[in-house]
Amino acid sequence: MFYHVKELQYRAKPDRPDPVFARKLQEILGGQFGEISVALQYLFQGWSTRGNGKYKDLLMDTGTEELAHIEMLATMIARLLDGAPDVELEEAAKNPIVAAILGGSNPQHTIVSGLGAMPADSNGNRWTADYIIASGNLLADFRANLNAESQGRLQACRLYEQTNDRGVKDMLSWLIARDTMHQNQWYAACLELEQKENIVVPSTFPRELQKEEVAYTLFNYSAGNESAYGRWANGPSIDGCGMFNFVEHPVPYGKKPKLKPAPPYIFDTPPEVLRTSDDLPDPDMK
Amino acid sequence: MFYHVKELQYRAKPDRPDPVFARKLQEILGGQFGEISVALQYLFQGWSTRGNGKYKDLLMDTGTEELAHIEMLATMIARLLDGAPDVELEEAAKNPIVAAILGGSNPQHTIVSGLGAMPADSNGNRWTADYIIASGNLLADFRANLNAESQGRLQACRLYEQTNDRGVKDMLSWLIARDTMHQNQWYAACLELEQKENIVVPSTFPRELQKEEVAYTLFNYSAGNESAYGRWANGPSIDGCGMFNFVEHPVPYGKKPKLKPAPPYIFDTPPEVLRTSDDLPDPDMK
Amino acid sequence: MFYHVKELQYRAKPDRPDPVFARKLQEILGGQFGEISVALQYLFQGWSTRGNGKYKDLLMDTGTEELAHIEMLATMIARLLDGAPDVELEEAAKNPIVAAILGGSNPQHTIVSGLGAMPADSNGNRWTADYIIASGNLLADFRANLNAESQGRLQACRLYEQTNDRGVKDMLSWLIARDTMHQNQWYAACLELEQKENIVVPSTFPRELQKEEVAYTLFNYSAGNESAYGRWANGPSIDGCGMFNFVEHPVPYGKKPKLKPAPPYIFDTPPEVLRTSDDLPDPDMK
Amino acid sequence: MFYHVKELQYRAKPDRPDPVFARKLQEILGGQFGEISVALQYLFQGWSTRGNGKYKDLLMDTGTEELAHIEMLATMIARLLDGAPDVELEEAAKNPIVAAILGGSNPQHTIVSGLGAMPADSNGNRWTADYIIASGNLLADFRANLNAESQGRLQACRLYEQTNDRGVKDMLSWLIARDTMHQNQWYAACLELEQKENIVVPSTFPRELQKEEVAYTLFNYSAGNESAYGRWANGPSIDGCGMFNFVEHPVPYGKKPKLKPAPPYIFDTPPEVLRTSDDLPDPDMK
Amino acid sequence: MFYHVKELQYRAKPDRPDPVFARKLQEILGGQFGEISVALQYLFQGWSTRGNGKYKDLLMDTGTEELAHIEMLATMIARLLDGAPDVELEEAAKNPIVAAILGGSNPQHTIVSGLGAMPADSNGNRWTADYIIASGNLLADFRANLNAESQGRLQACRLYEQTNDRGVKDMLSWLIARDTMHQNQWYAACLELEQKENIVVPSTFPRELQKEEVAYTLFNYSAGNESAYGRWANGPSIDGCGMFNFVEHPVPYGKKPKLKPAPPYIFDTPPEVLRTSDDLPDPDMK
Amino acid sequence: MFYHVKELQYRAKPDRPDPVFARKLQEILGGQFGEISVALQYLFQGWSTRGNGKYKDLLMDTGTEELAHIEMLATMIARLLDGAPDVELEEAAKNPIVAAILGGSNPQHTIVSGLGAMPADSNGNRWTADYIIASGNLLADFRANLNAESQGRLQACRLYEQTNDRGVKDMLSWLIARDTMHQNQWYAACLELEQKENIVVPSTFPRELQKEEVAYTLFNYSAGNESAYGRWANGPSIDGCGMFNFVEHPVPYGKKPKLKPAPPYIFDTPPEVLRTSDDLPDPDMK
Repeated sequence: MFYHVKELQYRAKPDRPDPVFARKLQEILGGQFGEISVALQYLFQGWSTRGNGKYKDLLMDTGTEELAHIEMLATMIARLLDGAPDVELEEAAKNPIVAAILGGSNPQHTIVSGLGAMPADSNGNRWTADYIIASGNLLADFRANLNAESQGRLQACRLYEQTNDRGVKDMLSWLIARDTMHQNQWYAACLELEQKENIVVPSTFPRELQKEEVAYTLFNYSAGNESAYGRWANGPSIDGCGMFNFVEHPVPYGKKPKLKPAPPYIFDTPPEVLRTSDDLPDPDMK
Repeated sequence: MFYHVKELQYRAKPDRPDPVFARKLQEILGGQFGEISVALQYLFQGWSTRGNGKYKDLLMDTGTEELAHIEMLATMIARLLDGAPDVELEEAAKNPIVAAILGGSNPQHTIVSGLGAMPADSNGNRWTADYIIASGNLLADFRANLNAESQGRLQACRLYEQTNDRGVKDMLSWLIARDTMHQNQWYAACLELEQKENIVVPSTFPRELQKEEVAYTLFNYSAGNESAYGRWANGPSIDGCGMFNFVEHPVPYGKKPKLKPAPPYIFDTPPEVLRTSDDLPDPDMK
Repeated sequence: MFYHVKELQYRAKPDRPDPVFARKLQEILGGQFGEISVALQYLFQGWSTRGNGKYKDLLMDTGTEELAHIEMLATMIARLLDGAPDVELEEAAKNPIVAAILGGSNPQHTIVSGLGAMPADSNGNRWTADYIIASGNLLADFRANLNAESQGRLQACRLYEQTNDRGVKDMLSWLIARDTMHQNQWYAACLELEQKENIVVPSTFPRELQKEEVAYTLFNYSAGNESAYGRWANGPSIDGCGMFNFVEHPVPYGKKPKLKPAPPYIFDTPPEVLRTSDDLPDPDMK
Repeated sequence: MFYHVKELQYRAKPDRPDPVFARKLQEILGGQFGEISVALQYLFQGWSTRGNGKYKDLLMDTGTEELAHIEMLATMIARLLDGAPDVELEEAAKNPIVAAILGGSNPQHTIVSGLGAMPADSNGNRWTADYIIASGNLLADFRANLNAESQGRLQACRLYEQTNDRGVKDMLSWLIARDTMHQNQWYAACLELEQKENIVVPSTFPRELQKEEVAYTLFNYSAGNESAYGRWANGPSIDGCGMFNFVEHPVPYGKKPKLKPAPPYIFDTPPEVLRTSDDLPDPDMK
Repeated sequence: MFYHVKELQYRAKPDRPDPVFARKLQEILGGQFGEISVALQYLFQGWSTRGNGKYKDLLMDTGTEELAHIEMLATMIARLLDGAPDVELEEAAKNPIVAAILGGSNPQHTIVSGLGAMPADSNGNRWTADYIIASGNLLADFRANLNAESQGRLQACRLYEQTNDRGVKDMLSWLIARDTMHQNQWYAACLELEQKENIVVPSTFPRELQKEEVAYTLFNYSAGNESAYGRWANGPSIDGCGMFNFVEHPVPYGKKPKLKPAPPYIFDTPPEVLRTSDDLPDPDMK
Repeated sequence: MFYHVKELQYRAKPDRPDPVFARKLQEILGGQFGEISVALQYLFQGWSTRGNGKYKDLLMDTGTEELAHIEMLATMIARLLDGAPDVELEEAAKNPIVAAILGGSNPQHTIVSGLGAMPADSNGNRWTADYIIASGNLLADFRANLNAESQGRLQACRLYEQTNDRGVKDMLSWLIARDTMHQNQWYAACLELEQKENIVVPSTFPRELQKEEVAYTLFNYSAGNESAYGRWANGPSIDGCGMFNFVEHPVPYGKKPKLKPAPPYIFDTPPEVLRTSDDLPDPDMK
């Protein structure tokens, strides 16, 4: 169960309105790696964790914090939209700042949300749960989380460079720092689980059931062997269970597949029509 | 540029048709972590890499291999659908195997694709590029890749347990082994980049521009302090640049936000109406 | 900012596992009118409210409660999935309960989420922010909320009838009661705003700027005049500003549109080709 | 069955082309509350109504009218796009009006639709049936309709303020007036059904099956009790069946959930790994 | 503008309810090639046609007819859902017909739509305007229409085979016949435009601006030269402007691309890190 | 199985960076008819073809080529984004070229992809498999392919006109030529299949099972009979099996549908409430 206080986790006040930056900031609110994504990803992972120890608690701590980040960004965006002009083409043609706003802002901020933030990214794509990951396997999911915080911090840093507004930069410096913590934290959690299990997810699938002979092989499907010079192609594998090896000219292990005709009630191209097409000089024979 | 040979990377032939399993297998073809996702993710990362060395080559090698995996799964699914019955409710009520097929198979396999595989997951959701990640920052993206291979292998292992068909299991044992390699490989690539840069992505954002005082803090937003007992709350941070610390009772750093009224041409709730609502005993005064 | 406690708002414990009902229950977790929708809808409305009075507080109270409902449903679904069998077609054909599970359950619950709840509906469609509404105009939005709680309670009642599990029914009786409150509450809020403003949203658009002569007219576009016998076609309009009237045989007010040819660089069908098609006996002349 | 006449319901002719406004106008054609949404929403509700009386007729009347509104907007947008320039960056840099068009118009209007309207919103998101609602319960659905007309009129009014084109304003004045009628009409229909049934949807679910003790309670989950001063927290409930009451400090009614471990064939994090994490000083004991 | 009559274009009455077939029938109502798709595709094409002759009229005739097909299918589906049981797992395990319904029906038909048709396909994916095509170029679009009617008739025929219900088959025989007409009609329209223009769309792009030397070449990118034995690889091209030719071993015309480093404010992988990776034995040198 | 070489099929190098055109070019990479669509469409069709002759080979040849086109466009877009400025509103207001870039470029190119191409269209909509078609019936699918190449070439020609960059035009001239070949090739393949089968898809559905009396009728649902003057309304049908005919005033063949009430556990509007609404003067009686 949740409680809300009206104070923000950290201040979210720009020096001045800027509807163009409001649009951009939507990316880290409602984009693939925005705050909605991490909040719901961590909470869903927490709710699915089948044990009540520190991992679940860590997920709930962090997911709940991300709700506060959604709130900060929603507040900041509303303020960046303060008094957004009702831009007109003719007027825009006369006033360069208006022209720039006309082009660079999100029309839905005035037409749809009434100067409020939207659950959408910087191109107006609405947020979708396609973005989030919760598998029940914590090592897999903590890797998803480490990635999410890496992508999230990267985007926040890029946005930091695209504004001179000190209030916006101040808020971003908070979010960037929190992403530093979160990268560190998920990294630490991954290391701990890797020590208890193994680096390969899932660790409990019997190793002998996989095709061991290709479990440490790099196949060189893209011409040129630069990739042979990496750690991943030489020496013992990271999981300590095999030796990396490099196959410069990979060949198929399987045969040309031949599918049976479909039954008549499917109305695919009739077999006899396809057969005419098969009736060719056998290319393997030439 | 690409070339295709008609032989499969590995054989994809079931012992017998099974339209229900065909539906399930769609998950690792066209689901969030299916082969379409990894193929396009690695290729897009490769095409965006601004340097021609081993990282780009590794991405192109692996992306090209994943195209072969799409092909194997598409072939396997078409064969599992061989001669799928045109199931009828009345008939199903009499024959338990038909009833089970009626319920468990994907109706689009007969109506839409004509017994072919579809670019969709096990619930029929069409594949979307919302699933993939390519940021231009290789450490971030290799983490995404490590996650993708972890989730992918997990799903393949779960599917392995849900069938007795030896042909299907044989093919899955290949894919599971390749995912072992790919987890190892992206892990190795991450380690190498972390040594060259730092574990925090992006490594080139000036550290002093982030709010350092909260860059290593775990805020305990979910009551109960189990999370205090993890590595992430004690000792030096993983990036070696700070000391983890735990705040048991986090308080807000920001104030209650107060947004300005919207201009009249936005037609939000008029300020005077909202103001009546504000005209209350001040709760802070009581 | 938010805080979380690990206790549930209300208990969420089924008598026994039931993966088929777990799938169905996803509808009110991650469907169009599931708890994710109402939680994010109310919170986004709250964050956009440009005044800090009782309306914003009410939105934040209720949005925060809905987060607890997501949690209850996620917990319930995880428990309904306890020990879900790894169903096989052949086995299913022998055991009717297994066959029913095979058909009626969501394969992603075993393959993707590892027996956890998903942010998706009962057909596996992932939740999308397309479902939610926040316009900055509170009367409009409270109507959206009244609708959401009506649809939500309706779905919960339908689900209540589809199970015999007392634990599930107990939890649903809680959610149904809360939806009763929420319908009452948004209704009350609508009434209050309608008294302050007017029933027509937005109330501040100058009435004379709309085409008044058709502002209270029911046009009978579907043959048969049953609709003439409703309150909406007789007497004073609900907003008190006009008289309803009924037009049995509506005629067009506009003319046949004629669009200009596209410029050549658009490569539409060339005007001369279209013109040949226009060169016909004038149908109005016959 | 439907018939079409080529005359428009009302004229749709701008004074002059304006590709930027064409983009904006897409919102009320193909956006969440655009004309496609209301047309299909009312028609689907009508087709599902299990009775042939005035409600069904009203739905079919209005749904059919909305088809004519799609047509008017499609015509208007095509005309606003007349002769849209094939804008180039260098040229744009010289001519402010071209620069404004470059930024503010929808590139798909030239590349994809060949200067035609698209079934998409002002950000180019394609229309989706996620937007529409039809539940079989007319009171619920009429509330959805009342909301749709409220949001739709709000957006049309906002657009009215963003143009000086008299032709566009003329057409909008028509649509705004029709939305006035439609708000009045659905309001009247709701009142009638509420009198026949009750305000709580669905009215036929036995009241005693819901958890009555929380059916009229406002829980104060967001700190600060401004919401206590509303009608929704005081006096008899709107449905006349209870008394509103306010709980200032809501506590959980449920317990901390504890989920059972997943079976091995699911490959979630193994129970013994989770158990290590549980093996902590009991936080409740400290 | 449109008018509606309540009679159906053709009868839509099944012999008996069948919720499983109701689900399947959704495919041709709300799927990729369902009636919503063709209705809106033809109408949008018609509204964008920049000339008022026979092509536009044909589009409006057919689009308006397809609205009647949506109505027929919505009616049929509602009737197939008549009295759909509120299926329970335990009960299903006892009764084979109930078990089959549990598995094969769409849970949203009872939970969401209240036994009404939905704007969704047979897997419950909501209809999206991603499915439709309108480019302003009629030859291109008539080809899209020819395809749509081909796919649509194919699906209707497949469904015809999956039921024994005479009422359903009767309605399908109507739709199948109409698709025969519509395939003939769009084919005729294509032939006419091809005679006026040319088979290559768009016909007005100056031929000399394309890379003529590869405008009639089949590149053999998939090993094996079966494709060399088709009409498309031999003789004059269909457009009469070239000679088909076959390149058995296609080689790249372009060079290995080398991208410039990203500027620092993008925070991609730093150039010096990528450079280390480039610092390899030159593979071209070996 | 696939192999990759690092050389491009054709060069993809612009004269100079242009982030605005980079955004536009996304349309033919990741839009509805972009290269991702055709690549995956042809490959999925090929993998589903149940015969190994020339049709399958042709599909695999062309699908594999389209992968090379994705690569060329991804490379071109990355180069058009070289050194994209970190645009700021204030600065933009001063510099017209910067203002134009601010408005016309895709913010995700700097925030999300780090100056790389994205699997998205020119409005930032992510690519979805909703765009592609593979039915198992080759004649149907070759028509889909002919359409795809028509739409694709149309879009490429439109883009050709929107730039002065010779490098970009050079690459487009290649793609436009290839689309010429592909239109010719699919056209040839359609002709061949039509000769073997018939023009109506599917050719194997027994003709007598369709409602023959309406299989060649044009119903005039849109007032005005311009459409009567086309080939599709006169003379023998294209499939040679009937005579086209024109019905100027089409009447319904079906009756007004009357749906049965829903069972109580569905909680639709109760029958007695609907019945009141039915209790009207019979409109047919007046």
